[in-house]
Amino acid sequence: MTAARRRGRRPAGEDTRAALLEAAGAVFAEQGYDGSTVRAIAARAGVDPAMVNHWFGGKEGLFAAAMELPIDPGLVVARVLDGSRETVAERIVRTFVTVWDDTGGAHFAALVRSVSSHELAARMLREFVTSVLFGPVAERLRVDQPDLRAALCGSQIVGLGMIRYVVRLEPLASADVDTVVAAIGPNLQRYLTGDLGLPPDRGR
Amino acid sequence: MTAARRRGRRPAGEDTRAALLEAAGAVFAEQGYDGSTVRAIAARAGVDPAMVNHWFGGKEGLFAAAMELPIDPGLVVARVLDGSRETVAERIVRTFVTVWDDTGGAHFAALVRSVSSHELAARMLREFVTSVLFGPVAERLRVDQPDLRAALCGSQIVGLGMIRYVVRLEPLASADVDTVVAAIGPNLQRYLTGDLGLPPDRGR
Repeated sequence: MTAARRRGRRPAGEDTRAALLEAAGAVFAEQGYDGSTVRAIAARAGVDPAMVNHWFGGKEGLFAAAMELPIDPGLVVARVLDGSRETVAERIVRTFVTVWDDTGGAHFAALVRSVSSHELAARMLREFVTSVLFGPVAERLRVDQPDLRAALCGSQIVGLGMIRYVVRLEPLASADVDTVVAAIGPNLQRYLTGDLGLPPDRGR
Repeated sequence: MTAARRRGRRPAGEDTRAALLEAAGAVFAEQGYDGSTVRAIAARAGVDPAMVNHWFGGKEGLFAAAMELPIDPGLVVARVLDGSRETVAERIVRTFVTVWDDTGGAHFAALVRSVSSHELAARMLREFVTSVLFGPVAERLRVDQPDLRAALCGSQIVGLGMIRYVVRLEPLASADVDTVVAAIGPNLQRYLTGDLGLPPDRGR
């Protein structure tokens, strides 16, 4: 659908899109996700801010494209919050495994290589965990220590991706989605809403 | 201590040690940890098998050196099993964080780059999780589904290393050891000895 759209309407469209992606990479890395505005990214790319909505549906979509994520994180946040508080983690694990299984995992390995080699990529992943995905989820759940909870969730999800797609360690590498959700969901749920065993002033 | 020993006693010693490391990398990668014998590695290196004990204290130490691990995994297994069953996971988290904090984390980042780029390194990490560290711990604890538990532990520990040392996500990146142990220990303990929520025939 996007290919037809790109070709049809706007001959210089691909250039606009590429310029936005390049500018987004630079601005997100310099300013962080929260500090970056659509306006600043568009200005850097030398295009109209409306082009961000046109090509990426907004700032979250642009971030996802700049990080080459296979799914819009805004969609993920909305989806995992749609249901009971006690099953948020299950939906997170199910969404991640389903999406990454679909892309075949090579994508995840490329992300890890990039993050372990380039500080900019590491910063993008930090932004992803804190400001784009787990941060907003923790905030919407109104829990204490949202930053620590987001980082803990990040550790489990990144580790799951490493073991399933990069290290490919059995039986986790080829376990079906229900098995992964049953095994990991409760642990992620503790990170999100459980007792972390810390006095209130710790771990901030 | 090793530097003096190397220089003093055996002029060709460094060559012997280097030949053993190279042979170990090849044999462990081809045969796996359990399938590799000290005798086969020494034969490949063209040296006497007694040199493995002399330079590395045994097969575990040689594996640790070949993977450039900062600590002998046999020592880790012995240490984490020395105490109550309910606190095994706490001791695992504390050992990992203490050892990796000491080496500064750059080591861990290099390991991740290597694992995400080379199949041999990925295989070595698989061996580390299943046959050298978490597998033996799970076996000694006499739990069901030891392989799945080992892989789940691997996912949490590798993810913790990624977030603390590679992505450097706060507040987990600079949290003190007690905070990390309190937050992550209970999750790792569930993976080791808790109910994984699966029927007995799942996740094998």
